[in-house]
Amino acid sequence: MHRRLLALGLLLSLPASAEEGMWTYDAFPSEAVKKAYGFAPTQEWLDKVRLGSVRLAGGCSASFVSPDGLVMTNHHCARGCIEDLSSPKEDLLATGFYAKSPQEERRCPKIEANQLVEMTDVTAKMNAATKGLSGAAFNTALKKEMSTVEAACATSADVRCDVVTLFNGGKYQLYKYRRFQDVRLVFAPEFSMAAFGGDPDNFNFPRYGYDVSFLRVWQGDAPAKSPDYLPWAKEGARPGDLVFVSGHPGGTERKSTVAELEFQRDVALPYTLLYLAELRGTLREFAGGSAERYRITRSRLRAVENGLKALRGRHQALADPSLLARKRQDEADLRKRIEAQAQVKTDTAGVWEENAQALDAYRRMLPGYRMKEAGDGFLSELFGYAETLVRAADELPKPNAERLREYTEGQLPALRQQLLRAAPVATDLEVVQLTFSFNKLRETLGADDPFVQLVLGKEAPADLARALVMGTKLGDVKARQALLEGGKAAVEASKDPMIQLARKVDAEARATRKRYEDTVESVLKRNGERVARANLAVYGTAGYPDATFTLRLNQGVVKGWTEDGHTVDALTTFGGAYARHTGKDPFKLPDSWMKAQGKVPASTPFDMATTNDIIGGNSGSPMVNRDGQVVGLIFDGNLQSLGGRFAYVPETNRAVGVHGDGILAALEHVYGATRVVSELRASQQVAAPSAK
Amino acid sequence: MHRRLLALGLLLSLPASAEEGMWTYDAFPSEAVKKAYGFAPTQEWLDKVRLGSVRLAGGCSASFVSPDGLVMTNHHCARGCIEDLSSPKEDLLATGFYAKSPQEERRCPKIEANQLVEMTDVTAKMNAATKGLSGAAFNTALKKEMSTVEAACATSADVRCDVVTLFNGGKYQLYKYRRFQDVRLVFAPEFSMAAFGGDPDNFNFPRYGYDVSFLRVWQGDAPAKSPDYLPWAKEGARPGDLVFVSGHPGGTERKSTVAELEFQRDVALPYTLLYLAELRGTLREFAGGSAERYRITRSRLRAVENGLKALRGRHQALADPSLLARKRQDEADLRKRIEAQAQVKTDTAGVWEENAQALDAYRRMLPGYRMKEAGDGFLSELFGYAETLVRAADELPKPNAERLREYTEGQLPALRQQLLRAAPVATDLEVVQLTFSFNKLRETLGADDPFVQLVLGKEAPADLARALVMGTKLGDVKARQALLEGGKAAVEASKDPMIQLARKVDAEARATRKRYEDTVESVLKRNGERVARANLAVYGTAGYPDATFTLRLNQGVVKGWTEDGHTVDALTTFGGAYARHTGKDPFKLPDSWMKAQGKVPASTPFDMATTNDIIGGNSGSPMVNRDGQVVGLIFDGNLQSLGGRFAYVPETNRAVGVHGDGILAALEHVYGATRVVSELRASQQVAAPSAK
Repeated sequence: MHRRLLALGLLLSLPASAEEGMWTYDAFPSEAVKKAYGFAPTQEWLDKVRLGSVRLAGGCSASFVSPDGLVMTNHHCARGCIEDLSSPKEDLLATGFYAKSPQEERRCPKIEANQLVEMTDVTAKMNAATKGLSGAAFNTALKKEMSTVEAACATSADVRCDVVTLFNGGKYQLYKYRRFQDVRLVFAPEFSMAAFGGDPDNFNFPRYGYDVSFLRVWQGDAPAKSPDYLPWAKEGARPGDLVFVSGHPGGTERKSTVAELEFQRDVALPYTLLYLAELRGTLREFAGGSAERYRITRSRLRAVENGLKALRGRHQALADPSLLARKRQDEADLRKRIEAQAQVKTDTAGVWEENAQALDAYRRMLPGYRMKEAGDGFLSELFGYAETLVRAADELPKPNAERLREYTEGQLPALRQQLLRAAPVATDLEVVQLTFSFNKLRETLGADDPFVQLVLGKEAPADLARALVMGTKLGDVKARQALLEGGKAAVEASKDPMIQLARKVDAEARATRKRYEDTVESVLKRNGERVARANLAVYGTAGYPDATFTLRLNQGVVKGWTEDGHTVDALTTFGGAYARHTGKDPFKLPDSWMKAQGKVPASTPFDMATTNDIIGGNSGSPMVNRDGQVVGLIFDGNLQSLGGRFAYVPETNRAVGVHGDGILAALEHVYGATRVVSELRASQQVAAPSAK
Repeated sequence: MHRRLLALGLLLSLPASAEEGMWTYDAFPSEAVKKAYGFAPTQEWLDKVRLGSVRLAGGCSASFVSPDGLVMTNHHCARGCIEDLSSPKEDLLATGFYAKSPQEERRCPKIEANQLVEMTDVTAKMNAATKGLSGAAFNTALKKEMSTVEAACATSADVRCDVVTLFNGGKYQLYKYRRFQDVRLVFAPEFSMAAFGGDPDNFNFPRYGYDVSFLRVWQGDAPAKSPDYLPWAKEGARPGDLVFVSGHPGGTERKSTVAELEFQRDVALPYTLLYLAELRGTLREFAGGSAERYRITRSRLRAVENGLKALRGRHQALADPSLLARKRQDEADLRKRIEAQAQVKTDTAGVWEENAQALDAYRRMLPGYRMKEAGDGFLSELFGYAETLVRAADELPKPNAERLREYTEGQLPALRQQLLRAAPVATDLEVVQLTFSFNKLRETLGADDPFVQLVLGKEAPADLARALVMGTKLGDVKARQALLEGGKAAVEASKDPMIQLARKVDAEARATRKRYEDTVESVLKRNGERVARANLAVYGTAGYPDATFTLRLNQGVVKGWTEDGHTVDALTTFGGAYARHTGKDPFKLPDSWMKAQGKVPASTPFDMATTNDIIGGNSGSPMVNRDGQVVGLIFDGNLQSLGGRFAYVPETNRAVGVHGDGILAALEHVYGATRVVSELRASQQVAAPSAK
């Protein structure tokens, strides 16, 4: 629990600020922004920046920064790829990577990049399909209609279509993306520099992370063309400057009901936090055992630590009584207004009672659901392959609209990419994680639970995990391909122990999922829609929708903040990074930086804080100026921004990015990445789109 | 999160039951018990059972079970001793222990046993000392008066005197104990049998733990006499039988205000749970590294896992909305009644507001307090020694009443025993734990925090921890003795790195404690008194006081329960234990039991569930029948009992004990512990005290 977080609540009772909002591109509040900052983007500006924005399907944001498919994102967004391309002999995560020619660029086994080319409203279609329905029937009909609409849109493997949910179901849109599955690694710094300061400095500021990487999308055997790229700014951002962030915030719960937030605080977050905390302890201790263990574990460990810190920040925001007090007040006001409007009152009848019942059921159901179906009992890449193969064998023969969502046609390219990626599996890490999760499974459901008995029998978790990982052939992509192509017959005939485990548990796992979807998800989803419509009806304005990993734009300024009476500056510098070097991990600058000391002026900006309203998923988002030119790269938020999941607090909530000047300076003077520097510098010559 | 816990709340709105209550011996509700069970203890009965009860100062209960100082308690209450007596060559925790003659009994380095011989009301003295005071002044005056009263009472090292707080300060009593510091190990089974089922079965039932050990108190060079011992029952308890439990429940929060409970749910428990969960992951992974690592870690790991599961149960009880709903209702009723009585209203003016303010301060203060002063940042036995030596050097020269509480005369014998115990320190485990806690310290307070900088400087946590543990001489009892006797001059001259660290951090650690005590503790304590008095005033009855690790008696019956529609029987059997054996830890019966299979009839009772209202601290409590004879040994509660911290639910809350018949049968037929068996059988001949 960080002291700084604890001051959050005092400021919550202030009105929404000019910075707040994660706006969809079709509803950007240009007038309000013009009023606040004296500048607003034109439609041309919006189109240009939207097309320059990239979504990494694994959960990050990025941008095109050259006409030849060069993509900028965070190191931590490409970390999986860098790891996949590493081996005990060639540790790219430790050394960094730079492709001196296009031929040296290496293909990332599992990265998919998307460019949003079209948005179509499909709310009417969805509403028509679910009209008059509730519970499981509502849910089934909605998912079926989504799959149908997506399948009709996705006419080739180069196109990805997702029906996206906005305003908790108040609005549905069909997002059509250009899909790139051949994504190659161009440049990455050392992990120790990307994550300088490690977990202690994560979500901290002042900060000195060079969390930068460059990828390139390819088509056929050549770099893809990307005419709608974002040019590099000639002048970097300075304190007070207006900056826009275009990216994919993963999820917020700002419109959630109080009961849903209390559920997060009391049930869901404690469950997940405790799982992650124990896993973190396990992985840290394991990784400390040898250099090779460290190599195979560090990326996973970093992800677990990041998740833990982020969720802890969320929990602390909810544990601050003032946040929920404000939410209760807002909800009371909404309900009072609903009471006063007969039609709205009818439309929302029973919402709060039904939600309370669904959440009470969820409280009892959550451990079983998480363990059996949501992965917590089977923490293993190899088991993931097995489960996917077993389910694909059952699902793919079904008509598209009747499949589980993740096996519908629209999802297949990504699913095939994940399944057939040529990335090594770290078996020792698999054993540790699977042992951990089998132990948690038994502990959570009890040794006498029939599902636990089904999985473990009389085996000890560690023995079973080792036997499964060592016995399975699913680490070999050919084995997976054979089972995918062989379908149900091949899966049923398989003697692979991991496949057999996945088959054995599938019925109960599916049943658990169905219970959850029918009893909880469908109720909360439908009522989310109803509350969203009520909000619109009584307040007359929609505002911005909760984040759903869809493309959003927002505005803010480069700005520090004040806490505990001392001021945190908006910018850090190269000089500051050298001053923070202790020689001990995680405060150890890599050799490349030690050698380059003095080559970059100490006053050159390194990282920066801005008031932009962002959240996890925004990692890798471009920060652009009024001219739509890149001035930085989002990679984090401060500790106070973690409560942004529920409410934006303008006084202290800060986005954290690598400064554009710093990015270029290090590429040039630390890494000598001249090919990348030239591509970026070339774009500095490009004319900016005109502003209003 | 265990499913079974989740059903807890539904039953909470029922009235207090016949079983509920942890009664002090001077206020046992004999009439109500007589009404419910047709039997009530006489004063003679009460005196006899009280004097037969033993308190283990480290946090457990026990009983005298022979006239020659034989003490029965749980294996887990003697585990620290068994571990202290073990070495890589002689692993008593693994093999168990049996002293075939008095000479073979081995002295436990740190166990202190107490027998409650006198209780005196000192409420008036305490009230007089704090009259008109509040905040820090209240706290200081109260502690000073306690120390003064205790010092006047403790006339020799064989006497221990504690002023104990009852009814949250509504009542104070002086408890005078006969103190035994020479406690020896007589018998212990294998750890694997004491904790059969391990963490998965902990707080579970049906259960097959043989969590039993026997100690003996010595005086001079002979076993001490214990004329007031509890005789062994000729016939064991059967379902439906009335049983009394006499022991030392550690702490409950049944009288806490709603705000205090919410603080537990939202702040204190999440903090501690996350700390323990990560520590558990660390220790498990560390222990798995080698047999020697396992040996030095298992006991500590078990304690951490037990704490984690217990606190998690507490958190889940508070996360169930129905529990707090009932508490809110109770508090609303109390406040309504207070409003109606002018004097009580005046006496409680500001209570809730002051508490809210104190808790808000505590929320901000808790991480720093826990890290700097309450041990979380310095998880190390060796650091503990250093801190004690540094503080003793400052405190002991002061007048008794002005010292920190733990350095007052009354506490010194125990403090000296802890400090000068001849027990080995496991240095590898020390390094792991100290590394862990330095990492948590930095993570929790931030890398830039002055206290963190003071501790770590530019060092990495792991390097610093290793240097301290390897560099200190405090593992040697002679080094500690020299520093204790040398006082301030010796401590200041010491070059020992652990002493130097403890000196360096002492000022800020003390300041943190003072801030906590002045701002939080004193407010909550004083207001706890005020609410307790208000309760008495408006309801006219005191009920029973919250548990405070003082001796309590309560009544219940041997009884199973029903959950999810299936019935859990009250007794398990030897046959059931063999059926649960899988051959894999933690469900592996030790060789002694495998060899003895068939020697004890399969139907012999093993463990049992009863409705007694107990909580942590009651471990090792004797279970006695109407005749005051031993019929079992408390060692646990079921999962549902964990919510008993806040409310007792008669339908499902169960105490778990080893059955008296099972204790004897295994001693005789599995372990051949004939000397212990003879002592117990001899007492079966003793006449019972008469009943009313």
